[in-house]
Amino acid sequence: MDTTAFFKFTYGLYVVCSKAGERQSGFIGNAVMQITSDPKQILVASNKENFTSELILASKKLTVSVVGVNAQMDFFGRFGYRSGRDMDKFSGCNSFFTADNQPVVLDNAIAWFSCDMVEVIDAGTHYLFVCRVLDAAITDAETEPMTYNYFHKVLKGKSPKNAPTFQNNSIN
Amino acid sequence: MDTTAFFKFTYGLYVVCSKAGERQSGFIGNAVMQITSDPKQILVASNKENFTSELILASKKLTVSVVGVNAQMDFFGRFGYRSGRDMDKFSGCNSFFTADNQPVVLDNAIAWFSCDMVEVIDAGTHYLFVCRVLDAAITDAETEPMTYNYFHKVLKGKSPKNAPTFQNNSIN
Repeated sequence: MDTTAFFKFTYGLYVVCSKAGERQSGFIGNAVMQITSDPKQILVASNKENFTSELILASKKLTVSVVGVNAQMDFFGRFGYRSGRDMDKFSGCNSFFTADNQPVVLDNAIAWFSCDMVEVIDAGTHYLFVCRVLDAAITDAETEPMTYNYFHKVLKGKSPKNAPTFQNNSIN
Repeated sequence: MDTTAFFKFTYGLYVVCSKAGERQSGFIGNAVMQITSDPKQILVASNKENFTSELILASKKLTVSVVGVNAQMDFFGRFGYRSGRDMDKFSGCNSFFTADNQPVVLDNAIAWFSCDMVEVIDAGTHYLFVCRVLDAAITDAETEPMTYNYFHKVLKGKSPKNAPTFQNNSIN
């Protein structure tokens, strides 16, 4: 198997957030997609070790912000490579708000979704969260979404170890 | 809810194929992604009405070809907007081969994957097929993958009614 073939899949980049009680966190994910149109449902893959996974299982709610192409590496540094168990990831945010009692990151966002998690599938290292979309909005109609390809090639970003796309000898 | 927010998700385009007994078919899908790295697993969403869904349920096998950016509309016309119940979609292919007894479309492909379907999730209008990747290869290292965004904006492609992203009053 040529494992570099996996680099040919196309993704966007997203901030997935959840709040349970007083605890809240978020992570940068690429494995997010729409799975049905009627009703509006999306699927989010999240590593079991992500603190946000715990919060989603507890609250059965999450939000997704679509990251725009102008985001810089410090943004990914805050949300992508550190654990929300050890820090409040939202403390450095310039702009976020609350939808359905859940945090929504607006920094670098071009659109957001608030969701009920309606089913969880155990896929081994990752949970697959099937989510019903409650609300959605565009916050920046001009900026294109950042693609995972752009993140790797232009920003020289790497997959963190909790990503579905992580490879030990990753070239990306 | 602003349903145009869903257009901000980023996808690639893929030909998903399966063969059960003597019947084989394929469809153009965008809802394909890697979900775990160890083992290598991908998730494929497929409308329940797709003929290929029947074949995947029967064979528990499928292949995925990653479509390159140079594919033209006639290619999507053959694989994306007609049912394999009524025609042999492979009859017009210039190049395909067989991996693990399953058909792999090489026309316009830049990489392919052959998979065992290990779990099926009922998501309403669509099945979610959790697949273990058996083999993978790159067939064109130079050409970039086609993105769904490019398909809509440059090729002026539309979502067929069986797509997860279909909207009745779709602007894309």
